[in-house]
Amino acid sequence: MNSAVSEPVLIGIDWGTSSLRAFLIGAEGEVLDSVSSPEGIMHVPDGNFEAVFANLVGQWMTKARLPVLASGMITSRNGWVETPYETVPLGADDLARALVPHRTACGVELSFITGVTTEHESGPDVMRGEETQIIGASALGMSDGVFVMPGTHSKWIRVVDGRIEDYATYMTGEIFSALRGHTILGALIEDGPFSAEGFKQGVTAGLKERSSLLHDLFHVRTLPLMGKIAPTMVADYLSGLLIGAEISAGADRGNKDGRVTIIGRNDLADRYETALGIAGVDSRRAPDDIVAMGHFLIARSAGLLL
Amino acid sequence: MNSAVSEPVLIGIDWGTSSLRAFLIGAEGEVLDSVSSPEGIMHVPDGNFEAVFANLVGQWMTKARLPVLASGMITSRNGWVETPYETVPLGADDLARALVPHRTACGVELSFITGVTTEHESGPDVMRGEETQIIGASALGMSDGVFVMPGTHSKWIRVVDGRIEDYATYMTGEIFSALRGHTILGALIEDGPFSAEGFKQGVTAGLKERSSLLHDLFHVRTLPLMGKIAPTMVADYLSGLLIGAEISAGADRGNKDGRVTIIGRNDLADRYETALGIAGVDSRRAPDDIVAMGHFLIARSAGLLL
Repeated sequence: MNSAVSEPVLIGIDWGTSSLRAFLIGAEGEVLDSVSSPEGIMHVPDGNFEAVFANLVGQWMTKARLPVLASGMITSRNGWVETPYETVPLGADDLARALVPHRTACGVELSFITGVTTEHESGPDVMRGEETQIIGASALGMSDGVFVMPGTHSKWIRVVDGRIEDYATYMTGEIFSALRGHTILGALIEDGPFSAEGFKQGVTAGLKERSSLLHDLFHVRTLPLMGKIAPTMVADYLSGLLIGAEISAGADRGNKDGRVTIIGRNDLADRYETALGIAGVDSRRAPDDIVAMGHFLIARSAGLLL
Repeated sequence: MNSAVSEPVLIGIDWGTSSLRAFLIGAEGEVLDSVSSPEGIMHVPDGNFEAVFANLVGQWMTKARLPVLASGMITSRNGWVETPYETVPLGADDLARALVPHRTACGVELSFITGVTTEHESGPDVMRGEETQIIGASALGMSDGVFVMPGTHSKWIRVVDGRIEDYATYMTGEIFSALRGHTILGALIEDGPFSAEGFKQGVTAGLKERSSLLHDLFHVRTLPLMGKIAPTMVADYLSGLLIGAEISAGADRGNKDGRVTIIGRNDLADRYETALGIAGVDSRRAPDDIVAMGHFLIARSAGLLL
């Protein structure tokens, strides 16, 4: 493919809570152009999504009216249009059938990709946006395996034959912040550069079989209290302990080939790569812009491509 | 014994972070009189422990100079005199040998009971005050078994032949507050009367084998979000989930007779009794004022009784 001469066929928007990204997508699913904005759904003045949308895609609509797909928290209760959840297992075709069309005041047609849920007895899981990334990754030589999306609420997703078979959410990132900021565990933390040793010790403790997080967390206090680790190691020990506990549960969920694909490009994703290594689990990184490929595949399955 | 005619032989003080209790103790370890105060170590103006102490025991010192033992956070870094930790296993005799004497400005002798630690590879545990309660309980027909002391930092303690064999701390209470007050889990909570059904469902989820707390906690959001439990049940579901997870780990630690003794008289202790019942674990409640019996036994072992 040659993106220099490719004509755009689709606009994809990944519209999250705190930011958004929009993509101009070519005939092979490749990204021709993209734009980022801090106008996540929590930062849209007066809920005027229409204005943000018009400003965002207007630059790409000069020649032709392109079809537009939007995914992410934009379809939640606090978003533009609330859509229902589809239930796993599902693939691009199911998400294509479940698209929710919307016509803007300016007469532009767009389609919302719905969220995805699970129906486990212990309780449902919910996601909005991640399913589109996974569908995209599955087209890039990653149609089977276990994926992790590190974050405030990490997702562990099992993909079989390009379809989302099952997944689970872990509140690791948000719990880290609450424990650090609002419990006694923060009291002995001293800021400093990343402590690889503190992180490693934490991961090792978190990976331990038959351990209890409610108990192990107390060591985040006692280890520095008794002089066993330095105060500048404590935050990374806590981070490692939680990520280790998450990996211990998540990497085990129906992981046949023993490898995990990490989706994400930030420092947090680097931590997961390190922690998976400590756990003895092979990992690889998903390519960038898989969400745009997800938009492309779902739009194609829905017959929406220009 | 007849407390009406018994002469006092000892004063015991259980001096914690947020409150304290002092006991006038008779020749059999029985409580002749007691007084409570909100002057825990965090509420002593200008760190003037001496003044609080003099005011507290003065009323009982009119006839004779009684020996005084103090236990609890009063021996921590933020207390009156910081003392080292003794290491498990230990009994009344070990704590008696480790007493730290102190002479007040007014010339009153008192002895501090030191804190107790563990030396596990994964990290140490620490307590100050609970060891005295356990020593007391062991003299009241409870010289063997597993004890739980519910609280901000719950303790699970294994007692063999009247000695503290091992113990572990669980941050359950503090983590409940942090999650409720400072994560998205609080957002869907509606206040209401205690929800026995919400609590029970939470305990059952927390007791589940091979579950991950970092994942299960997300259900505290999704269950009400998807209309599976009412908003007024959510806080008790969260409480039950955490207590269930604690019991799952704690009640299992070397518990030979399968019974747990609950130390505490508050609502929280009632929750643990309910949760242990759901777990199929027999429980009983320790009598009141076991801490005074602990002071008595340690003082007797040290040859300090009047």
